[in-house]
Amino acid sequence: MTSSVIRSAVSVFFEYDTPRIAHIRSKKVGLINRLIQLAIIGYIIGFVIVYRKGYQDTDKVQSSVTTKLKGIVFSNYSDIPSIGVRTWDVADYVVPPQESNAFFVMTNVVPTPAQTQKTCPEDPTIDGIQCDSDAYCESLKGTSSMKGNGPITGKCVDSDFPKFNGTKVCQIYGWCPVENDDLLESLKKPVLQNASNFTVFIKNNIEFPKFGVSRRNLPENEDDAYLSKCKYNPDSSRDKFCPIFKLDTIVQGAGVTFEQIAVEGGVMQIVITWNCNLDHSINDCVPSYSFRRLDKGDFKISKGFNFRYANQFGVVQPDGSFKLYRDLYKAYGVRFLVTVQGTAGKFSIVPLLLNVASGLALLSVATIICDIVVLYFLKARHFYREKKYLDIKGPDAFEVLKEESEHPDNDNTPNRKSTSTESGSASIANQVR
Amino acid sequence: MTSSVIRSAVSVFFEYDTPRIAHIRSKKVGLINRLIQLAIIGYIIGFVIVYRKGYQDTDKVQSSVTTKLKGIVFSNYSDIPSIGVRTWDVADYVVPPQESNAFFVMTNVVPTPAQTQKTCPEDPTIDGIQCDSDAYCESLKGTSSMKGNGPITGKCVDSDFPKFNGTKVCQIYGWCPVENDDLLESLKKPVLQNASNFTVFIKNNIEFPKFGVSRRNLPENEDDAYLSKCKYNPDSSRDKFCPIFKLDTIVQGAGVTFEQIAVEGGVMQIVITWNCNLDHSINDCVPSYSFRRLDKGDFKISKGFNFRYANQFGVVQPDGSFKLYRDLYKAYGVRFLVTVQGTAGKFSIVPLLLNVASGLALLSVATIICDIVVLYFLKARHFYREKKYLDIKGPDAFEVLKEESEHPDNDNTPNRKSTSTESGSASIANQVR
Amino acid sequence: MTSSVIRSAVSVFFEYDTPRIAHIRSKKVGLINRLIQLAIIGYIIGFVIVYRKGYQDTDKVQSSVTTKLKGIVFSNYSDIPSIGVRTWDVADYVVPPQESNAFFVMTNVVPTPAQTQKTCPEDPTIDGIQCDSDAYCESLKGTSSMKGNGPITGKCVDSDFPKFNGTKVCQIYGWCPVENDDLLESLKKPVLQNASNFTVFIKNNIEFPKFGVSRRNLPENEDDAYLSKCKYNPDSSRDKFCPIFKLDTIVQGAGVTFEQIAVEGGVMQIVITWNCNLDHSINDCVPSYSFRRLDKGDFKISKGFNFRYANQFGVVQPDGSFKLYRDLYKAYGVRFLVTVQGTAGKFSIVPLLLNVASGLALLSVATIICDIVVLYFLKARHFYREKKYLDIKGPDAFEVLKEESEHPDNDNTPNRKSTSTESGSASIANQVR
Repeated sequence: MTSSVIRSAVSVFFEYDTPRIAHIRSKKVGLINRLIQLAIIGYIIGFVIVYRKGYQDTDKVQSSVTTKLKGIVFSNYSDIPSIGVRTWDVADYVVPPQESNAFFVMTNVVPTPAQTQKTCPEDPTIDGIQCDSDAYCESLKGTSSMKGNGPITGKCVDSDFPKFNGTKVCQIYGWCPVENDDLLESLKKPVLQNASNFTVFIKNNIEFPKFGVSRRNLPENEDDAYLSKCKYNPDSSRDKFCPIFKLDTIVQGAGVTFEQIAVEGGVMQIVITWNCNLDHSINDCVPSYSFRRLDKGDFKISKGFNFRYANQFGVVQPDGSFKLYRDLYKAYGVRFLVTVQGTAGKFSIVPLLLNVASGLALLSVATIICDIVVLYFLKARHFYREKKYLDIKGPDAFEVLKEESEHPDNDNTPNRKSTSTESGSASIANQVR
Repeated sequence: MTSSVIRSAVSVFFEYDTPRIAHIRSKKVGLINRLIQLAIIGYIIGFVIVYRKGYQDTDKVQSSVTTKLKGIVFSNYSDIPSIGVRTWDVADYVVPPQESNAFFVMTNVVPTPAQTQKTCPEDPTIDGIQCDSDAYCESLKGTSSMKGNGPITGKCVDSDFPKFNGTKVCQIYGWCPVENDDLLESLKKPVLQNASNFTVFIKNNIEFPKFGVSRRNLPENEDDAYLSKCKYNPDSSRDKFCPIFKLDTIVQGAGVTFEQIAVEGGVMQIVITWNCNLDHSINDCVPSYSFRRLDKGDFKISKGFNFRYANQFGVVQPDGSFKLYRDLYKAYGVRFLVTVQGTAGKFSIVPLLLNVASGLALLSVATIICDIVVLYFLKARHFYREKKYLDIKGPDAFEVLKEESEHPDNDNTPNRKSTSTESGSASIANQVR
Repeated sequence: MTSSVIRSAVSVFFEYDTPRIAHIRSKKVGLINRLIQLAIIGYIIGFVIVYRKGYQDTDKVQSSVTTKLKGIVFSNYSDIPSIGVRTWDVADYVVPPQESNAFFVMTNVVPTPAQTQKTCPEDPTIDGIQCDSDAYCESLKGTSSMKGNGPITGKCVDSDFPKFNGTKVCQIYGWCPVENDDLLESLKKPVLQNASNFTVFIKNNIEFPKFGVSRRNLPENEDDAYLSKCKYNPDSSRDKFCPIFKLDTIVQGAGVTFEQIAVEGGVMQIVITWNCNLDHSINDCVPSYSFRRLDKGDFKISKGFNFRYANQFGVVQPDGSFKLYRDLYKAYGVRFLVTVQGTAGKFSIVPLLLNVASGLALLSVATIICDIVVLYFLKARHFYREKKYLDIKGPDAFEVLKEESEHPDNDNTPNRKSTSTESGSASIANQVR
């Protein structure tokens, strides 16, 4: 008896279940079936496997970017002492001097040199700051407007802005003299408009950790002489891999002219794309560059991109103490963000199997659609239905009385519930007979 | 013969396989089946398609953020010369002046003005720096502790910290005088506590590249007058789209009071969420803002957020050379990180089909569960089993001898291995008979 | 009649379809079937559920990082006045003073103190700048090379670089005197080589938003005394959780010596990994640290990592006006990027069900493979094929004439199209007979 149980249990290991299939030979349905199958197989092989490289395992790029700017601009504004006659170099126009994946290049500037903490007339363009007498300012004493430069002292004094000669404004205590943006109008063009000629060397090291592949954006086969002189050029098959970019090329690559963006500043994106097929030669794993303007659309208020920074320093006073001074700069310019993206693919059996498997699963859609056609739309649908379905009336079947009476000769009627010799209806009643 | 082969090959295109189905009519099992199917269909339509918007293709937001702070603070510490009577503006309290997706606002400060490289007494709070005689310091000559400000010269001198009047410490060579944090205790409140009234204008341009949609966080229908005056307010249906934020509002939105965070500093996150349904009007694609404190939990050592920076400058000496001085600042404050997240969805036939298809696949779960009920739990399980299964004994079948002998009348016994007229057992032996 | 229709409709709810199965008992095929099933179940349970933790819902880490450096270096270059005898502290060598997820430590420096805007000899190492007479320089007047420091004035003057004593170069107008990199050769080792002893305290707060779990990289069970003194050490079970890192440890952890990287600079990555199993104790949710050098491979041009920054200041002139001076620094050093990654998992019924369900779906692969074996490779393939398939000849079947004639006794031949008692061929013709 025990050996029988064991044999029974063991027999389970030598069994195998497979669905029973109705194999229908029909030109109409067969054609529909094959066409749908063809479409699905075409989709899997053509789109999923070949086009989408479904046979590859993929990995996202990891990267490090450092940038180095080169170039100088000479500005000759002998009539504007705050700018004057001077040369601007990297340490002047890159603020802050280094950032992660980003750099800022100043294109225009409103300097306010030698500010110190004292009293001076407020900016006359601020709402409600213009006055007739001390009484008005006295009523505002100690307050400051959101756009103001310091608390009001209570005195009404002459404005020191040339355009507002003769206007009286309240006096404030703060960094004096206050900044005067009228300077921008005196400039015919942005102070550092020639920044368009600056070059930036973008050093980009990348890695695809899963495949242990490291690359950098420096053409392997070029010599130092070329690399120290080349400029990126998207239309040249050689220069399109040069990692040194003229700012003008970047800006134009985004469909903007440098003149447009230099006046009020803006934000540009440099996208480095590493899409590598590691089944090919590693030497084909090279970056491509694209450029976009990120601050599209006019912001009605606070256009462009600018910010203020200051250099503070102490000045020795006659008594030996230090007095704090600063040079304030309102810097307009272009902020460049460097984004590195990309994917590497390499042949791997696992994704291939997964894609083929999920593709095969899709094939059942063909069967479902053909079933619908065969069972509901064909003339011979009753015949097919009878072959596909075995109707089983369980002991607790819901009785469809009328129908039963209408088809008393259940066994011979070619409908779903009929019994034919090989597939048809059966009931527990028949069974136990 | 060839034509026969061709016809045979061609015939393959006009065939179609469909599984043969046992159609069981039973109240119990049918009800279980339909309820499970209903639940699955409800899940697919209700949750996957409608709630999770399974009919939409999605794209992640790409964004650029620039920030601009406004506001001034007046500090009147005439008794503390290193701070003094002064106005603090944007160029003073935002360090560094611009960053990617982040900005820092100074709320408290310990200035140490006019340091230069020379000898001076070390900070007396450093372990082992207090001395009785030069002999002790001489033994430490040239060394410096990790928290020290320079190498020890070997002399034992009076401390210049008011609180340590009369204490003797070793002398060092470095930036002198050394920083004295006792200043914090003299301040009744953070020097720039009114920074809570500062406003920050967050300019956020976003893009959903897949759908070619660009947006910015500036209400389209508002005029300049409103935009230049509005403040973000989460409780106002109009002001909750204003891109100008009072720092106090941000901090309170994270459940923190500005007073708490101003003393020792902290790190806040501003989350801009763009969840857009592009099937609706593009005007409904608007951002929502939320705020969090990131440095939750007390760090027992080095609480809050602070860092040191310095402004260096040269001072002309009588001989015409320059001597290097600097103003050192230990800045406490709040670091704000701006994170942009979000997803846009738009109707697309592909995800809809995929979701419906994988939903249909789930329907087979109903069949599996009902099969288990029918084949193992119902009284009539042997009857159903016999209908569902055709038992085939292959030429190399594993013989279950005992059982065979126990059921000699194989054909009529209602168990899995029985043969009925339409579905039951068959063996190759019968076949070749 | 209506009641009949209603009953019919209602009866649909008490039906249930299940595929009819051929249950084949065969040692060979059964074994293949069970082995494949075993492999699939082993893969699902062993790999998907247990190894890949398929029973867990996961969430990505969100984090905030702030860093704080400590340490001083004393440099004694009394023979090089631009460096001199001085102590370098945090405010000197961390530029900019704070960044998001990054910090820079200066290891070597070329200072050019007290530059001002005036005329001076250009750097003689620039191509084409050396001259014999004013005539040559006059021809270049107003131009400046890409690597130059200002526009050429037209005069030919003696170079002020000691190594080029006696050489004549064109004069320029710009920040003068110009930077001289020869200084690097005079230095026996990097000015701040002892930066290897600096420590950095990395404060990392993380969150798994989905699970509401916040953690920080500070050992909970340690006291302040330990935390203020500990140093990270990967080989110590206690110190490997200390959040204070010696720079030397970081650099060595990436397989680089500090001496190598200090001379020309480089980029290092500090990876903090939080992989947490929240089904275990929350106290086991601790970070692990790893270090990599990101700028691997020699960049033939512009090696290492360096940048220029300047401190500007005004100097009062006899007439009371200010003249702008600056100290220029070419800073070499190591840029450290802090990357926080990780995933938390917590038991959830949904991913478990999804993994089991997709695992079950895979089981059908066993059936497909066995079908191929049974139907194409076994000797008894015709027998099995006949059992599995019911051949149905539709009214529009494609006739395979020859074959028909070859097998006139259609009903008794054991091939796909034969009719046996229980499963075989059927045609509409037979049906309507």
